Amino acid sequence: MGDGAMKAWIDELKTLLGECVHTEPEVLTAHAGDKWHAASLPEAVVLAKETAQVAAAMKFAAERSIPVTPRGAGVGYVGGCVPVQGGMVISVAEMRRIVEVNPADGVAVVQAGVLTADLQQACAELGWFYPPDPASRKESSIGGNIATNAGGPRCLKYGVTRAYVLGLEVVLPDGRVLNCGGRTHKNKQGFDLVGLFCGSEGMLGIVTQATLRIIPAPPARAALHAGFPQFALAAAAVQNVLQGGHLPAAMEITDAFTLRAARQYLGPGVLPEDAQGHIIIEIDGQADAVATELQAIAGILRATGATEVVTATTEDEVEAIWQLRREFSYSLKATGLTKLNEDVVIPRSQLVALVEFCAAMERESGIPVACFGHSGDGNIHTNIMVLKDAAGKDIREPADALVNRLFDWVMAHGGSITGEHGIGIAKSPWFPQAIGEVAFDLHRTIKAALDPLGILNPGKMGL
Amino acid sequence: MGDGAMKAWIDELKTLLGECVHTEPEVLTAHAGDKWHAASLPEAVVLAKETAQVAAAMKFAAERSIPVTPRGAGVGYVGGCVPVQGGMVISVAEMRRIVEVNPADGVAVVQAGVLTADLQQACAELGWFYPPDPASRKESSIGGNIATNAGGPRCLKYGVTRAYVLGLEVVLPDGRVLNCGGRTHKNKQGFDLVGLFCGSEGMLGIVTQATLRIIPAPPARAALHAGFPQFALAAAAVQNVLQGGHLPAAMEITDAFTLRAARQYLGPGVLPEDAQGHIIIEIDGQADAVATELQAIAGILRATGATEVVTATTEDEVEAIWQLRREFSYSLKATGLTKLNEDVVIPRSQLVALVEFCAAMERESGIPVACFGHSGDGNIHTNIMVLKDAAGKDIREPADALVNRLFDWVMAHGGSITGEHGIGIAKSPWFPQAIGEVAFDLHRTIKAALDPLGILNPGKMGL
Repeated sequence: MGDGAMKAWIDELKTLLGECVHTEPEVLTAHAGDKWHAASLPEAVVLAKETAQVAAAMKFAAERSIPVTPRGAGVGYVGGCVPVQGGMVISVAEMRRIVEVNPADGVAVVQAGVLTADLQQACAELGWFYPPDPASRKESSIGGNIATNAGGPRCLKYGVTRAYVLGLEVVLPDGRVLNCGGRTHKNKQGFDLVGLFCGSEGMLGIVTQATLRIIPAPPARAALHAGFPQFALAAAAVQNVLQGGHLPAAMEITDAFTLRAARQYLGPGVLPEDAQGHIIIEIDGQADAVATELQAIAGILRATGATEVVTATTEDEVEAIWQLRREFSYSLKATGLTKLNEDVVIPRSQLVALVEFCAAMERESGIPVACFGHSGDGNIHTNIMVLKDAAGKDIREPADALVNRLFDWVMAHGGSITGEHGIGIAKSPWFPQAIGEVAFDLHRTIKAALDPLGILNPGKMGL
Repeated sequence: MGDGAMKAWIDELKTLLGECVHTEPEVLTAHAGDKWHAASLPEAVVLAKETAQVAAAMKFAAERSIPVTPRGAGVGYVGGCVPVQGGMVISVAEMRRIVEVNPADGVAVVQAGVLTADLQQACAELGWFYPPDPASRKESSIGGNIATNAGGPRCLKYGVTRAYVLGLEVVLPDGRVLNCGGRTHKNKQGFDLVGLFCGSEGMLGIVTQATLRIIPAPPARAALHAGFPQFALAAAAVQNVLQGGHLPAAMEITDAFTLRAARQYLGPGVLPEDAQGHIIIEIDGQADAVATELQAIAGILRATGATEVVTATTEDEVEAIWQLRREFSYSLKATGLTKLNEDVVIPRSQLVALVEFCAAMERESGIPVACFGHSGDGNIHTNIMVLKDAAGKDIREPADALVNRLFDWVMAHGGSITGEHGIGIAKSPWFPQAIGEVAFDLHRTIKAALDPLGILNPGKMGL
């Protein structure tokens, strides 16, 4: 498309949609990528306030075969909203209306740009609860959560985003507005269209509004953290807690490398000294129950070899434990190294094998590998640390080779190469192998059926 | 297709697959329908024992454009497995192998013909739990549960079947075997193919094996039941329990008509006298917690006007309360009337409005309407009782007219015409209106993309 033609459609779009169409260089730059490293400038950005604008822009693009990249808050990790073919970005980030929080129906209705934390806050004010809690919840939008079927620590007990989406308003690749699912907590009307759009990474439609299931807020929560002399004992404790009939809201595990980095970063006295494995557990429920269960779980951890168990029963104490979890991330950043954070998932029984495999890779390559994450569901954030050369420049190739080895190992052990972040651009090289030939072909079939022009979020998942 | 051609393909199929191919009249008759009234004979039945047989039969059918109707245990309520175009039935009912129950990974792997109750039993023996509990669980298969995304009372707390399906093996309409999802508790590898097949009523593929999520069995459960002088108070109690921060495993509600029938059927002293509304609540969790929470909930019910609250803390007592729930069904059958059981779902706040609407229909038409069901998620089994003429024959037309009025009301009040049973044949007349034009068109698109020959479970959902 020549510059003249380009300009022509942009002018037409401005005539059609007015001031929500942007071409200022700083706006284009701000919509070129996400938290991953790739970036590509769009030719125009539509900052939609209403569904009708999204639909009009999409219909306009379909009539002219202009590539469209949908975008929420832009905090993804896999380049999912990079407009690799230029064209138009349609952002729902300014569609931030919480339409309704309705405990009597157990639903919340929100526009796609509402931040996850804002919704949680609105529910909490009424004593209700929207459980999905991606780490990015203060900056990620519900639309993005739906596009990636976002998880988080609490998904062990409460399930991922999909479990809370009852109904969706979606703009289809031809500009029609689809309403699917609804306001009811059960719905068996035909195929699961809601499920098809959840996790589809903006490649089948643009989610503009969602009706979400909310549940009564558990009145109390408590947490504990514990150090273990070996990582394998920490992993065994995870199994023993579950086998004991407990289903905590969250169970996080941390490996020796991360603990060393954290001790260096935090100074002495914060973390159990000499621990080579570490667990954080949160439980919630009725107040009496939580207190009793916390002691039972602490007992299981001690019986499994925990050297130190610290319990937390007040809100401040619980928050302090979660702050510790956040410090693990900061500690790794404070090493000065770039981390390649791969959110692999393995069957829970493979936890120790994964960490041992990573330790072996580290010994062989000299490249540190730090593992921590959601042990209950086997979703371990495996951070391959990129070393630097004498000039301070990242030495990428050896680290990239380790990513290859890691994914091969994960696939060979019944795992998934991504549990929360998605495929986007970042993981598309491994995607066909990860899901197999028939499943990949079915992706092509579905994509071609719903988006025959191939204009919606092109260049993702290798489709 | 002439008889000669018919016979030719059946002989070829027998040559290909041997003794799993059946044409005996009694076998054909046994595979002509489900629990709904429609029936249609297939020309051949494949009783598969292994996935390879399903795949070979499907490939054979695709090469010859022979209609295929997949079938699990055949206990559906909407005619979903009626072979309306004849052809071949492929039954997975004999694929009953529980491949594995693995607490360390939190998964169970089962063939599609495994009965739900058998899986639950196998999990329970290890102290683990597969929560979905359709009323038919002793006779329905996992494959059928997946095809209809089955629910049950416990879905209030635990979610429907979809929430427990991690991976599927599916034979596609061209005979290829798809493996999607996997063994991990989180998986963000591409589109949600698992979700697409869950609830697709055998129209997109034939599920042959499933990898299911299992969770630690809650160590204790308790239940209560309570009568209320008005149905509206029972409905208010449901809201008050949730608003009090409780999320029971199940909350069932029953209307005055059903209670009258039950008192007649059960005799005096079993049910609270004069109650016009009735609630059953089950909670589960840690033993101490359950005992305390039960009292708290009983208090809420009394404060909302319950005239009598009966609590149950032993397994036998709890079972007795659930037996009472089953007696409600038997009581309606014992009236001698045929019941049209419609599993509508309404937003929870519409519970009283629905029951009042049904009572008004009853007054106007003289046809009894009995409502009971899963009040927590608004999934109310609305039973329109078909009266009989002097000759004892069902007078169907007035009852059918009420079904029409009921569905119109449900659609106008943000509800769903089916929460658990599905569309099949029975609800296909209302299906396009229920989901709207764009969603219906998208069903056609998806069906055509995955099954271009239109041979898999034809004549269902009006597609």
